[in-house]
Amino acid sequence: MQPVYLDNNATTRTDPEVVSTMLPYFDVHFGNASSSHRFGSAAAEGMRLARRQVQALLGAAQEQEIIFTSGGTEANNMALLSALETQPDRDEIVITAVEHPAILALATHLAKTRGVTLRVVEVDSCGRLDLDQFDEYVGSRTALVSVMWANNETGTLFPIPRLAERARAFGALFHTDAVQAAGRVPIDLKSVPVDMLSLSSHKLHGPKGVGALYVRKGVAVRPLLRGGRQERGRRAGTENVPGIVGFGSAAALAARYLEVEQGWVGALRDQLEQGLMQRIGQAHVLGDAQHRLPNTSCIAFDYVDGDALLLLLDRVGIAVSSGAACASGAMEPSHVLHAMRVPANAARGALRFSLSRDTTTPDIYRVLEELPPIVARLRANSPLWRDHAPVPA
Amino acid sequence: MQPVYLDNNATTRTDPEVVSTMLPYFDVHFGNASSSHRFGSAAAEGMRLARRQVQALLGAAQEQEIIFTSGGTEANNMALLSALETQPDRDEIVITAVEHPAILALATHLAKTRGVTLRVVEVDSCGRLDLDQFDEYVGSRTALVSVMWANNETGTLFPIPRLAERARAFGALFHTDAVQAAGRVPIDLKSVPVDMLSLSSHKLHGPKGVGALYVRKGVAVRPLLRGGRQERGRRAGTENVPGIVGFGSAAALAARYLEVEQGWVGALRDQLEQGLMQRIGQAHVLGDAQHRLPNTSCIAFDYVDGDALLLLLDRVGIAVSSGAACASGAMEPSHVLHAMRVPANAARGALRFSLSRDTTTPDIYRVLEELPPIVARLRANSPLWRDHAPVPA
Repeated sequence: MQPVYLDNNATTRTDPEVVSTMLPYFDVHFGNASSSHRFGSAAAEGMRLARRQVQALLGAAQEQEIIFTSGGTEANNMALLSALETQPDRDEIVITAVEHPAILALATHLAKTRGVTLRVVEVDSCGRLDLDQFDEYVGSRTALVSVMWANNETGTLFPIPRLAERARAFGALFHTDAVQAAGRVPIDLKSVPVDMLSLSSHKLHGPKGVGALYVRKGVAVRPLLRGGRQERGRRAGTENVPGIVGFGSAAALAARYLEVEQGWVGALRDQLEQGLMQRIGQAHVLGDAQHRLPNTSCIAFDYVDGDALLLLLDRVGIAVSSGAACASGAMEPSHVLHAMRVPANAARGALRFSLSRDTTTPDIYRVLEELPPIVARLRANSPLWRDHAPVPA
Repeated sequence: MQPVYLDNNATTRTDPEVVSTMLPYFDVHFGNASSSHRFGSAAAEGMRLARRQVQALLGAAQEQEIIFTSGGTEANNMALLSALETQPDRDEIVITAVEHPAILALATHLAKTRGVTLRVVEVDSCGRLDLDQFDEYVGSRTALVSVMWANNETGTLFPIPRLAERARAFGALFHTDAVQAAGRVPIDLKSVPVDMLSLSSHKLHGPKGVGALYVRKGVAVRPLLRGGRQERGRRAGTENVPGIVGFGSAAALAARYLEVEQGWVGALRDQLEQGLMQRIGQAHVLGDAQHRLPNTSCIAFDYVDGDALLLLLDRVGIAVSSGAACASGAMEPSHVLHAMRVPANAARGALRFSLSRDTTTPDIYRVLEELPPIVARLRANSPLWRDHAPVPA
């Protein structure tokens, strides 16, 4: 039986159409895009189209606002470091407690080693930002505000336009990690005053190893990688032409599938969530139900071990995540659920189901069939559950 | 007619066998290598094999000495920055005047902005290092010595074991940019006291957008990209699994083809070089004829414009380079030929021919047929040449 893949916030399947677009760039148009002969021009031409495709997905005004990187982490790291380097007179960074490690780890490191003051905005039990605290933290010393467009674990969407306006009012740069949002919810940078935005190709059915940092025209930027003059001197290194071409193709497909993502994928997610809530007691949907990515459902099952759940689901061919995929190898409690003050017994048993346009109705049925008996079995063996189980009527 | 590609130091064609190895990792084993389900394990398994393949190409003692990066530039940048961060008591860097921009540009930037003292070892007219100056520069304040294994423009090989010994004697770290050397000359890190070494996949018939930094066990290292715990916490970011798998496969092929590279490719290069020298007067082979990559020939044609040569060769389907490919987009004089004090009239007309195992005998014949009349035509139109042409007998 085909395995069921519901871990699309960790990574997505590269669309076969994307792979087809990439293939000629490996062994026919394989030139270095900086070379001036026909092999180079063919590579550069492929990159030009890709840049316009990514630009279109974001509604960016100009194609040179897109800087290709090796992925979301590099884009996030570059945004943070660049904002500090270009504004030596400002030494504060405002982020949220639920940012991706690529923001959180670097910001913490800079606070420790470079005297940067880090202000971390808290979230409530639904993962919503404390807006009063946000407003209090942003000020004339703020170099950068960085708030993700959508949270990778719960799917919670943040009010980016409102936050970006606030940053702008204090002359601070505003960056958003839109790695999980792009291709899932509409983004139009013509109407949102974002200065920088990070993207990752592999989260929207493009290849791994490529991403982009959008930098609004007029915003000063410093390279993170130094060397050759690629990307107008803003990102050195021979361009990953097949990867960039694939990213562009994936961006074009994502724009085309946006309605599917919001309609069909959202409906499947709701069907999964409601089905599980009906079949399994003492389960809680985490995150902001009103403002959430259509593809993501994070559900905490009380008194079950998430890793045991993952293992048993994997045995029956169902792939989900027990927290941020980046952290899941480390088996640490998720910093996002911690920030939401999810009680330990629930957080331990939290699963993230993340769907995509590849998800089918039979996939959902499989989970609705397989998961309830697994939860029941684990709970039956748990002394904690026996103490807390609801008394049968 | 098939175009002739002699620009393999800029980038190589991805071997079709490498592409085949990568394909399943796009849409079948497409998981995030950090995920704990079957999609994740399949990806992680692909990476494990790749790491062993890269390890084997270098003769590295342990597979965890290989850190995958987005390419040679990132590896070079990481080596430099890491060496400074881990040794705050040492503030000098020793490099050569002919390093790749990924070393040169960052080192210059650090000298300007972070108070690092940069010592740049000069080369002679054959591109050979000034060893006395090298010995003078390396000392107890040296944090890092970084010398490329082979120069990308002339192919000149540097005496890495001797240089590395000297660095070690002063307790300095030794890094080598082996991007052009790997797969072309044997490298065995068991017998050479190199602490760090940079590789790029696309220079050895692997995909673009992936490379590695070798870090000898016991040498402290700091991440350049911060975030998730990938690569044992040394390089954050979702792993480029298809790229890494392709790099591994390319490394295995490179090890297998090493004799071809040194024998057959070297013979073709010699045939090209001798043929051109016989057919074209006032031409000079640049670099160290005794210690040179087997695939590279850099030839200066007096009183011709290199860019015009490139253009006319491209029209007849021959792709070569007029200098470092990374810089060629910028149309600046090559810093390597400048360091070698090649006279301006020769440097302007320098072409780099770089072969690979894809190069054929007919490719060489095409160049021997097409290039001499092009040089003659350009010279006939050059007032400078008319003043300096040898008087016909």
